[in-house]
Amino acid sequence: MTDASSTPASANIGVVGLAVMGSNLARNLASREGNTVAVFNRSRSKTDELIAAHPEAGFIPAFSYEEFAASLSKPRTAIIMVKAGRPTDAVIDSLVEVFEPGDIIVDGGNAYFPDTIRREKAVRETGINFVGAGISGGEEGALTGPSIMPGGSDESWITLGPILKSIAAVAEGEPCVTHVGHDGAGHFVKMVHNGIEYADMQLIAEAYDLIRRGTGKTPAEIADVFAEWNTGELESYLIEITAEVLRQIDAETGKPLVDVILDQAGAKGTGAWTVQTALSLGVPVSGIAEATFARSLSSHPEQRAVAAALPGPDEEFQVADADAFIEDVRQALFASKIIAYSQGFDEIRAGAAEYGWTIDLGAVSKIWRAGCIIRAQFLNRIADAYAAQTDLPVLATAPYFADALTRGQAAWRRVVIAATQAGIPSPAFSSSLAYYDGIRAERLPAALVQGQRDFFGAHTYKRIDKEGTFHTQWSGDRTEIEAEDTH
Amino acid sequence: MTDASSTPASANIGVVGLAVMGSNLARNLASREGNTVAVFNRSRSKTDELIAAHPEAGFIPAFSYEEFAASLSKPRTAIIMVKAGRPTDAVIDSLVEVFEPGDIIVDGGNAYFPDTIRREKAVRETGINFVGAGISGGEEGALTGPSIMPGGSDESWITLGPILKSIAAVAEGEPCVTHVGHDGAGHFVKMVHNGIEYADMQLIAEAYDLIRRGTGKTPAEIADVFAEWNTGELESYLIEITAEVLRQIDAETGKPLVDVILDQAGAKGTGAWTVQTALSLGVPVSGIAEATFARSLSSHPEQRAVAAALPGPDEEFQVADADAFIEDVRQALFASKIIAYSQGFDEIRAGAAEYGWTIDLGAVSKIWRAGCIIRAQFLNRIADAYAAQTDLPVLATAPYFADALTRGQAAWRRVVIAATQAGIPSPAFSSSLAYYDGIRAERLPAALVQGQRDFFGAHTYKRIDKEGTFHTQWSGDRTEIEAEDTH
Repeated sequence: MTDASSTPASANIGVVGLAVMGSNLARNLASREGNTVAVFNRSRSKTDELIAAHPEAGFIPAFSYEEFAASLSKPRTAIIMVKAGRPTDAVIDSLVEVFEPGDIIVDGGNAYFPDTIRREKAVRETGINFVGAGISGGEEGALTGPSIMPGGSDESWITLGPILKSIAAVAEGEPCVTHVGHDGAGHFVKMVHNGIEYADMQLIAEAYDLIRRGTGKTPAEIADVFAEWNTGELESYLIEITAEVLRQIDAETGKPLVDVILDQAGAKGTGAWTVQTALSLGVPVSGIAEATFARSLSSHPEQRAVAAALPGPDEEFQVADADAFIEDVRQALFASKIIAYSQGFDEIRAGAAEYGWTIDLGAVSKIWRAGCIIRAQFLNRIADAYAAQTDLPVLATAPYFADALTRGQAAWRRVVIAATQAGIPSPAFSSSLAYYDGIRAERLPAALVQGQRDFFGAHTYKRIDKEGTFHTQWSGDRTEIEAEDTH
Repeated sequence: MTDASSTPASANIGVVGLAVMGSNLARNLASREGNTVAVFNRSRSKTDELIAAHPEAGFIPAFSYEEFAASLSKPRTAIIMVKAGRPTDAVIDSLVEVFEPGDIIVDGGNAYFPDTIRREKAVRETGINFVGAGISGGEEGALTGPSIMPGGSDESWITLGPILKSIAAVAEGEPCVTHVGHDGAGHFVKMVHNGIEYADMQLIAEAYDLIRRGTGKTPAEIADVFAEWNTGELESYLIEITAEVLRQIDAETGKPLVDVILDQAGAKGTGAWTVQTALSLGVPVSGIAEATFARSLSSHPEQRAVAAALPGPDEEFQVADADAFIEDVRQALFASKIIAYSQGFDEIRAGAAEYGWTIDLGAVSKIWRAGCIIRAQFLNRIADAYAAQTDLPVLATAPYFADALTRGQAAWRRVVIAATQAGIPSPAFSSSLAYYDGIRAERLPAALVQGQRDFFGAHTYKRIDKEGTFHTQWSGDRTEIEAEDTH
């Protein structure tokens, strides 16, 4: 083993945790001009394997935290790529022991943002910088160029910015990384990215299901539909891979793979986090919620088995004009997608206000244009919208989106009606439309809800015609009195 | 001031916190045969006021925790009625100092169940029993008979059971209280009760809105509709008070009060807790989620102001046959309500499994028949369903409910279609129907979602035709390999 004190401090960046994501990120770093990469893993074998497999990378291996620290030039900068939770805390604790004030510890894992806020606060007391960085793009992205969402201090960004820019995906000449905001801002934005991804995927799944059941087209034929859609305003990675998945034939059975895959969707929790956080912030992200619930519903076979006996509509579902229906579904998908993104950006804005982050929503949309799962041309339109009005209260009302919604709403309604009539579950399509109709409603029956709340709980209400807070004495003479606001 | 040592230990129950809820609960306790009630409040004036106003109650006032403890016979039993959060913790700490092993501390506030689990664990170490008890029914219920959902140990229930039974609401001769389960079980069930309440209220609000906009009937006329509904299968407190609220005329303007109330619904967070918890448990409570989001959507006037410009359908909404439409809405409301309750009970079952509670779902439905906000005859049908099959996987599939859904589904679809066509937001109606169509679907497009996840993240999938976990090598030769399950 090398003597730690003799290791030259020649690496400008280090990676801790050499599972697939960590190895790929280390290789990506090593492949960029100007980077020398120190690598460390708890068990020695992973390090040895990586070094042996990639001599071209010029990795500087370390076999202890002391050695790892000694191999890094100052300010030492290390990216942790281990499992979220306790493993991350353990590595942070070890690095804090061997690092010095001014050094930078980056958590590139999928941390829940309140953990990142907590860690940043704790590490900051040592004088070391802690940066929670969301990294999107999976194993492939880590190797070839991910979308990176770092939080943390301004000081850390000075050193970290150039390094992350060197490895990030590039969209229209711009690297897909920006300093999102302080402490947990990066992981917060990554969380919402994933929530939007859930909605996007569920909407695509509903579109596929409706077309298949409404037109009788085969998965391969529907693959052609998605490939065609991918040349227009829906152009995106998820639409592109949907065509690939639908075209895939299972070698064993000769059937479309999508018909062989068990219809129970898994989840790793980031969709749930997004909705849970939105509920705390009072932001209605109903499309993301329905997408998350659609996955959990699918994954309860014991419930689906007994519920299968519940009846659906009598009539067979068969659309009269397949092409017209497919175009309707395309417009419904685009409209619903606009709502999902509008809700997601709403949550980021509310999170920034709640946690005191300054987040440039346009910059966020730009770094999602490449490297990440929801990458799409569409994100340029979001950037345009925030460039035109930084404090836009509802993304869906920006001219480009409002126009698309105006053009698409009739088709959107036809699709939701067809699904309702046919008994085909379209929770994300219908929820998005209900949100659209809700937010544009001149008057909502929330007034009745307030009346009920005042009746049973004296929760009070406000009036449309004057300031103040009021209560009707329901169990008395039913006169109205001014009241303390108990909401 | 009385000397603590000389206070006779003559009270069998004490109340700490004498704001309206606490005072009313203390008066309720004092009014029942066999109870002598000690009362204590942090500031002396509230205690003095209560004593002066209600000499008939025979309260034993205490002006220090020592005096309060000395006034209670053993095992000492005290119900805390203070604000959730830190005030509750402060009172618990003070009581722990003056109580002894075997005594019982009850938190009757609206605590979040993980806090109750934490508190029970901490207090248990002192040998004192801690019971989190959900109390529903508001100020009125506290005085005349609430529905009570206590958790805590079996030992505490021996002493506490008879006391709580003496003050609870009574439904068909049975007191509305049961030992729900250990530690946080009571507050958990109270939380879900409130979540169901959100859904119930939103569904009623949507029904009202649709009838009003579809038939042009006045609020007073719609009050008659609700009053009529209250004589049938929808009979419930919330339907009853909806008629009262809709009939109310604002004295100042002469308009229906519901038209004068600002249409921004408040919330105290229990709906959000219910949904957040369901997300952690993987239980789709989409109806409760949509209801919670409908309130938050309504409460963003700055967003609604800009979104008001988004267009709705061209045609005017006017139903051809008002009576037929109203009957459709009634059936849609009942069907959606069944789904909301089914989802809520699903969450309780999942919570019990997760936290190791033994919860009798039939007993829970029975204690909601009186005293609480969602009280209704309907809950007898839920009790019947669980009596017939304790481990019923989906409440909505019990014969009575399945029959109602079978009869009502055509009307339900017509209502959702009408709302969609008319641009009237009905998120809870449409979400409940989408859930219904989802859970009964033979095949869901979740299979496509699994294909997408395997494509971009190597998340693997299962097959319908054999055991194991599989991955298609999408970026390679696209053959399938057996893989480790990474979900």
